[in-house]
Amino acid sequence: MARYLLTIEYDGEDFCGWQRQDNAISVQQTLEEAFFKLCHQKVTLEASGRTDAGVHAISQAAHVDLTTTIPAEKIPYAINTYLPDSVKVMSCRVVPDDFHARFFAKKKTYLYKFYISPHLRPNYRKTHYQINYDLDVDKMKAAANKLVGEHDFKGFMAAGSSVENTVRTIYSLTIKQDNEFFEIEVTGNGFLYNMVRIIVGTLLYVGCGKLTLDDIDSIIKTGNRKLAGITVPAHGLYLKSVEYEGLN
Amino acid sequence: MARYLLTIEYDGEDFCGWQRQDNAISVQQTLEEAFFKLCHQKVTLEASGRTDAGVHAISQAAHVDLTTTIPAEKIPYAINTYLPDSVKVMSCRVVPDDFHARFFAKKKTYLYKFYISPHLRPNYRKTHYQINYDLDVDKMKAAANKLVGEHDFKGFMAAGSSVENTVRTIYSLTIKQDNEFFEIEVTGNGFLYNMVRIIVGTLLYVGCGKLTLDDIDSIIKTGNRKLAGITVPAHGLYLKSVEYEGLN
Repeated sequence: MARYLLTIEYDGEDFCGWQRQDNAISVQQTLEEAFFKLCHQKVTLEASGRTDAGVHAISQAAHVDLTTTIPAEKIPYAINTYLPDSVKVMSCRVVPDDFHARFFAKKKTYLYKFYISPHLRPNYRKTHYQINYDLDVDKMKAAANKLVGEHDFKGFMAAGSSVENTVRTIYSLTIKQDNEFFEIEVTGNGFLYNMVRIIVGTLLYVGCGKLTLDDIDSIIKTGNRKLAGITVPAHGLYLKSVEYEGLN
Repeated sequence: MARYLLTIEYDGEDFCGWQRQDNAISVQQTLEEAFFKLCHQKVTLEASGRTDAGVHAISQAAHVDLTTTIPAEKIPYAINTYLPDSVKVMSCRVVPDDFHARFFAKKKTYLYKFYISPHLRPNYRKTHYQINYDLDVDKMKAAANKLVGEHDFKGFMAAGSSVENTVRTIYSLTIKQDNEFFEIEVTGNGFLYNMVRIIVGTLLYVGCGKLTLDDIDSIIKTGNRKLAGITVPAHGLYLKSVEYEGLN
């Protein structure tokens, strides 16, 4: 038996999210069933964190214990033959037996993609969120800079979530524009429930003038979710990478 | 009655191609049925050219004759409410009664997207072709330069096609790389059947060493389809734009 760290790409459209659920197909169940077919073992995958229904992953990380003679670097090729095209394992390496994909994660990076258009764009409808208003990108960047650092992000957490500690550190939060297409990329030591989607919704509100830079300060200070912007839809969100100390 | 020029975006995955077919859903039929619902008129859309099953369009052009009081610039909003998310009208303008979307087209630009990866990438599987070998991009660019200009492209036409004149002009043929992602963009005065997909397949063969720069000369000189590369799959191909003299 050895512990393996996998990186996994998936198209969130086809799944009810990472975590196993009754009556719906999750990424976790799909992978665990594929490993059962490959190794004839009932395994449990532990991801760096759950992703919601519709959220994509460019590189989710998960660990799994396997007894197999297949070399680690060949495992992606082997397991991918048992997986649908909507989820594939991109890499695999042996890690220490006490490694844990969730507890050992040091940094995560999420990407949010959207475009401005008066009409839905068929070729981007499953991969990008659509907005139909102009943005003051400089103001959005100024608001983003206020969020970088260690803050209590309670105001950027889905109402009704229960975690004790809502302090997180954002290492970087950047906004890239290519004509009508935008990408917001955020790296942090961890994220509260819906935090990335609420940050993006709040930056969009700043960009279109519904919120001011002072409002950003108020949201951080009061922790009041109602002061922040909308939770933008899942289909524009990508878990881009998970970093572990001494591993990457 | 007036003649309108539409620009249309569609996701090729959902259609049997542009042209009406029995027992399959085409882009043309979908649009014509939507116009029937909007204007209660049986109309025929004439596109700049057909696109094959699976080929996407960022901006296909088509003309249609309508009797309507809806201002041209409002037609996209009106018609889009009757269209599925896989096809939308992006713009509409009045054109002269003798305008013809196919015969008046002066330039077309196609884009082909692909990536290099040993494993299928779930988030790009419907939008990009996957290859699993390294490319000599400089050699591909040199081969691309040989194709620019007026040439007999018979060797880059699907075998069995019957057109009298196989001479076409390519105005530009560029290869852009962003890490493992590539875009080949080609602009010409017209394209033979499967010509873009065979050009891309041939450039890939040059990039991986299966064909030389001299082979490009031979394909042009002999017009022998068998000397060229494969016809790459439809799902990486996008009709990006169609230009009309004095209109754009």
